[in-house]
Amino acid sequence: MLRFGVIGTNFISDWFVGACAGRADVTAVYSRNPDTAKAFASRHGIEKATTKLDEMIAAVDAVYVASPIRAHHQQALTALRAGRHVLVEKTMAGSAKQVGEIQAAAMASGLVAMEAVRNLHTPAYQAIKDALPRLGTLRQADLVKEQYSSRYDAFKAGEVLNAFDPALDNSAIADIGVYPLQPALDLFGVGPIATHGSSVLLDNGFEAAGSLVLGYPDRVATVSWSKITAGVTPSVILGEDGALTIDDIAETSRVTFTPRSGDAEVLFDRAPVSPGETMAGEIESFLAQVDAGASDQHLAALTLASRRIMDAQLAQYHPMPDER
Amino acid sequence: MLRFGVIGTNFISDWFVGACAGRADVTAVYSRNPDTAKAFASRHGIEKATTKLDEMIAAVDAVYVASPIRAHHQQALTALRAGRHVLVEKTMAGSAKQVGEIQAAAMASGLVAMEAVRNLHTPAYQAIKDALPRLGTLRQADLVKEQYSSRYDAFKAGEVLNAFDPALDNSAIADIGVYPLQPALDLFGVGPIATHGSSVLLDNGFEAAGSLVLGYPDRVATVSWSKITAGVTPSVILGEDGALTIDDIAETSRVTFTPRSGDAEVLFDRAPVSPGETMAGEIESFLAQVDAGASDQHLAALTLASRRIMDAQLAQYHPMPDER
Repeated sequence: MLRFGVIGTNFISDWFVGACAGRADVTAVYSRNPDTAKAFASRHGIEKATTKLDEMIAAVDAVYVASPIRAHHQQALTALRAGRHVLVEKTMAGSAKQVGEIQAAAMASGLVAMEAVRNLHTPAYQAIKDALPRLGTLRQADLVKEQYSSRYDAFKAGEVLNAFDPALDNSAIADIGVYPLQPALDLFGVGPIATHGSSVLLDNGFEAAGSLVLGYPDRVATVSWSKITAGVTPSVILGEDGALTIDDIAETSRVTFTPRSGDAEVLFDRAPVSPGETMAGEIESFLAQVDAGASDQHLAALTLASRRIMDAQLAQYHPMPDER
Repeated sequence: MLRFGVIGTNFISDWFVGACAGRADVTAVYSRNPDTAKAFASRHGIEKATTKLDEMIAAVDAVYVASPIRAHHQQALTALRAGRHVLVEKTMAGSAKQVGEIQAAAMASGLVAMEAVRNLHTPAYQAIKDALPRLGTLRQADLVKEQYSSRYDAFKAGEVLNAFDPALDNSAIADIGVYPLQPALDLFGVGPIATHGSSVLLDNGFEAAGSLVLGYPDRVATVSWSKITAGVTPSVILGEDGALTIDDIAETSRVTFTPRSGDAEVLFDRAPVSPGETMAGEIESFLAQVDAGASDQHLAALTLASRRIMDAQLAQYHPMPDER
């Protein structure tokens, strides 16, 4: 079984270890803080806990990078240069330029570099793709993920936690917007002819909500996201012959098809799943790519295109330094 | 009672005459086709049917302009120059420049020029405005109107009816998009700092569907419309404290408030109304403006701003001749 090392000990890493069960071994964890590393290792029965990144990398076959986005680029390149595959939490890096460097390094070494966008790898998402032909000519999509963050309450009380700190390359578009954006690009086309949008910035410069339009010659999609509101409406994909509604584009439990003149038909219906449960698919995709000896080029293109669109959205507010 | 003359004998004029009952008298109708004019007059018990515009205008106090958009500008100016108020179906004209000319002519003569955007003048819309403070800080809106047109079936069968003819200045954004766009501008602000969008064009150049984003410093709205798909999702307005869902932004029968953590509460609930019924409010607003002796400046600003945004959206595909 492939041996994973984990960078980062936040809740997402806990979910990851859980989702690895029966699929891969998590054999090492790295954190800058020795106590945090030890606690994580002890919690999950992981052999090695270390504050030395090189030491952790040397002990595994692949690295799961779940640090703040700002750290992804350097850590992923370090692992790739040591000959290790990388599965990097979304977004793969803090800029499209950095994403391109990671992808090029992986390709040059015959290694896999994959971004962990878990909602692209679920049975629910497969049900959506399978249903698309029933919509007839695809025309519109309105994909949304608005999730009020408990950390926003802290922010309003004067405490800026990592999740609301732009200095860590965090933003709502990268953290939440990725869930509707990547399906939009996957289903409607990775190369829209026009993209444009606007965001809401908080006083500290944190991008907290936004919307964008993806234009194509024969169809158009809107993507909306937020960490400061709680959405109540489903995502929807419209063709000339019908509509597909998706209760939650990130953690889908229900997909419904409504023909243009006819009654709704539930195509997929499962009890709400936890984010951890939906990570199994992305791990299986990663393992298949490792077996194949190369990154999936369509997924790589999605990763690059979505980060490029995010960069353009954010650059309206924060000019991006040349070196990134 | 104010005497209205009607230009145009399509279904919208039938609705208009019905909505005038008890509010104003419709005493004359103009059409280029004498038989059409006579049939309309006879159907509604209207005294005067004529193919001469000047003759019709001379016989009334105000003119309701419900011809194809391409004809609005000249007809509205003709009525205003004869000293008559004008209520012009949406959109007021085929370009912001023409809208500005109509509004300037009305202002110079102490006359009213109002665009008939019926969903801004309903009890349901008032319920939406009344509920906004409950949302807390407004952050996002996603207002949609997607209405599959039976004329699109004709279009696909090779017959281009007026409703799908761009040569008449018709477009989905003007015909349908106006219903979500004007509330978005009214509720979020008539002067967004950024607007951008994309549309879907049919083979004959007809703009048939689209989306746009309205950006503000502290909020963002998306607006979507279509004549070639049938929408199934509500419109929604999100604040930090809750969500307002609107079953149909054009013909609203249900408005629901959902607090961020709590149960949904229905704020407005009426049996679905016909478009004709929702026209009463706009007629009453027009009559009040006539009594006041001036156009409502906020409504005038909405009319101009929305047409300017439409022009920019359409100009991406059809460069607009200088003279318009």
